[in-house]
Amino acid sequence: MTRLELARSGRITDEMEEAAASEGATAEYIRKELAEGTVIIARNIIRGSIRPLAIGRGLRTKINANIGSSEDRTDPREELEKLKVAVEAGADAVMDLSTGGNLDGLRRLILDESPVPVGTVPIYQAALDAKKRGKSFVQLEPEEIFDTIERHAGDGVDFVTVHCGVTLSAVGRMKKDGRGNGRIMGIVSRGGALTAEWMRFNGKENPLYEEFPRLLKIAKKYDMVLSLGDGLRPGCLKDATDGAQIEELSTLGGLAGRAREEGVGVMIEGPGHMPIDQIEANVLLEKQLCHGAPFYVLGPLVTDIAPGYDHITSAIGGAIAAAKGADFLCYVTPSEHLRLPTAGDVRVGVIASRIAAHAGDIAKKVPGAMEKDIEMSRARKALNWDKQISLSVDPQTARALRESSPPKDTDVCTMCGSLCAIKIDGPGSF
Amino acid sequence: MTRLELARSGRITDEMEEAAASEGATAEYIRKELAEGTVIIARNIIRGSIRPLAIGRGLRTKINANIGSSEDRTDPREELEKLKVAVEAGADAVMDLSTGGNLDGLRRLILDESPVPVGTVPIYQAALDAKKRGKSFVQLEPEEIFDTIERHAGDGVDFVTVHCGVTLSAVGRMKKDGRGNGRIMGIVSRGGALTAEWMRFNGKENPLYEEFPRLLKIAKKYDMVLSLGDGLRPGCLKDATDGAQIEELSTLGGLAGRAREEGVGVMIEGPGHMPIDQIEANVLLEKQLCHGAPFYVLGPLVTDIAPGYDHITSAIGGAIAAAKGADFLCYVTPSEHLRLPTAGDVRVGVIASRIAAHAGDIAKKVPGAMEKDIEMSRARKALNWDKQISLSVDPQTARALRESSPPKDTDVCTMCGSLCAIKIDGPGSF
Repeated sequence: MTRLELARSGRITDEMEEAAASEGATAEYIRKELAEGTVIIARNIIRGSIRPLAIGRGLRTKINANIGSSEDRTDPREELEKLKVAVEAGADAVMDLSTGGNLDGLRRLILDESPVPVGTVPIYQAALDAKKRGKSFVQLEPEEIFDTIERHAGDGVDFVTVHCGVTLSAVGRMKKDGRGNGRIMGIVSRGGALTAEWMRFNGKENPLYEEFPRLLKIAKKYDMVLSLGDGLRPGCLKDATDGAQIEELSTLGGLAGRAREEGVGVMIEGPGHMPIDQIEANVLLEKQLCHGAPFYVLGPLVTDIAPGYDHITSAIGGAIAAAKGADFLCYVTPSEHLRLPTAGDVRVGVIASRIAAHAGDIAKKVPGAMEKDIEMSRARKALNWDKQISLSVDPQTARALRESSPPKDTDVCTMCGSLCAIKIDGPGSF
Repeated sequence: MTRLELARSGRITDEMEEAAASEGATAEYIRKELAEGTVIIARNIIRGSIRPLAIGRGLRTKINANIGSSEDRTDPREELEKLKVAVEAGADAVMDLSTGGNLDGLRRLILDESPVPVGTVPIYQAALDAKKRGKSFVQLEPEEIFDTIERHAGDGVDFVTVHCGVTLSAVGRMKKDGRGNGRIMGIVSRGGALTAEWMRFNGKENPLYEEFPRLLKIAKKYDMVLSLGDGLRPGCLKDATDGAQIEELSTLGGLAGRAREEGVGVMIEGPGHMPIDQIEANVLLEKQLCHGAPFYVLGPLVTDIAPGYDHITSAIGGAIAAAKGADFLCYVTPSEHLRLPTAGDVRVGVIASRIAAHAGDIAKKVPGAMEKDIEMSRARKALNWDKQISLSVDPQTARALRESSPPKDTDVCTMCGSLCAIKIDGPGSF
């Protein structure tokens, strides 16, 4: 039985107990939500050694860091360094999105080393392996796609992105808005673009949609989570919340229902690029159309004009999405839209994403979310600098900034000096 | 006549024309909003050389960069460098918050050099000058406070923060919430703390409240904007939106109405630290209680636990506030809560704040706000990298990131290589 089936049968497992303990929730809460499909636990059955990570309704918002090589940068040591940096900075999960070098070897290395759940996007490897065999990805047999997914599952991958909602109908929908109302950016998801081109070339429906039960069988065997990918997500603000995006989301909702019936845990991936005033509606739509399945958002980036700062544009969007109910944030680094991120970018991206998730948790009133903020505020009132630094989301950076500018009066800082409001106001005035 | 009186009498001045042109608004729109007090123009009559900056309803959200020395760091060259960096990075206004060295000299230097409006907080200087004369600030005569304000106005300061709403009643209100419901942080505004201590020591009402007409007279003489300060703003999330804060805001609303009657432009300062789910209500309250006066917010910071990253916590809060109607964002730098910012911090703070303001403008549908995003999206679809970089909020940083990691195929970047979705999807598919 999968954990969803166990939960539905009323059984509380060690895994549920463990996941509950790290959330400050009861195991019964986790069981009930798992049974309803509103919480998932991302852990492949062959990865018993990692701590189970629960994601979903009522729980702390989690964050994911994408790592992985590219055709231009293939050094496995660099990717292991990124893994280390991401986990140390507080990533709850990582995705190995490698597209360069020895993909099987790199994935297995990352799975061996990662203490947190690992996700992948198998279609990348299927496409690249076809290229190695002298074929275009459009010539791939569905068999080869499923084999790659099974290989990832067999290696212990905890969740896979599968672009099952990129259907002939949804792709066609994009063309129906008429001149001037259509998309500027078309398809910006790599998996989405590959799938759409495959369908166009072969004149056939998306095999991951048509043969969804086959996918469920693989997922079930390893109790692996399916992350239903948004291959038609908007690639810019102007394209947000259009017919194709919403049709895909609705399709994913139907597939999520079928996965639950089979005892397979699913989450739903979401945009992407989106004006601030559309975020709440997008979260609501996901929750409604997908029956409360956990929502995994990339960003959203709230403006297109800030390459170099997309960790900030996505922290804005991610915080709002989390506040409105998104459950899992995929980080974005300062290098987004410009280059493969470095380990330094990974660190900044994780911290920015943790800030967004935490700010969202306070707004959505996750139990205990405000406690650290209250402790910090007490430390500030007490002018207790050591405590302020140790309570920081990144103590190393906070300490470095303070120590770089030592004040004459060590009670205060070099900003306010003798005009420090906290000192003037005195301790415990109110 | 002040510009507010001119506007009310139906006159359109050159200044209104100039301000309108830089907004893409009509001069009549600016006149009408000025007359209603929902837009202000920050320009002291003796500073005819700077471009008039309009702030308020229906206009692009503006951003301010705080610069200025402290007791621990008094080098004027450093502050002039910060001014230069702030303006180059796109600050619409700066505030000279100097508290160290020769305050008059530094303010005059900054006024001479700044092509953008300059604001100050005269109470800092009043307190520090008292100290120099061997007095405590609580021994200041009201006369000395008004004299300092007049000196700033006479030097050409375009807007001053005055903490007129820190009344005996509002400060007393803080004590009435009972054990356990009271504030953790008390008063965190320097001006607010100074004023409250002055009142406590002297057993008297705040002179800036009691003698408000005197303040109006100074402001009127120089057509200087009064930025009604939020001396009782919350200093942490837990203290947000409490009785004292709202009483002060309501008092400021009354003063704003009186200022308008006298033809004086005002804006209202706002928090500070605030959970995401309270931001919309705070903007609404300001707009209601203060009759649509422009809202100038500091942050808000949406979590307390991220010293070193408060440019990000405030970009999140600022973007949401702007989206909901805030008109003017005060930047926060990575050094907030830790040290006086460096010129490098100023640059990052301005960029983060510009991102927040712009994302807010898109959401509040400021005319033209999306145009640059659409252009950027077209450049991305065309794989036109030079154009992407030139359209960036910070081309220098975007270029450096891309050039640090040159791809083999210069159409794409080192993230996706041959899997570039835009390339796979092809030009103009939709």
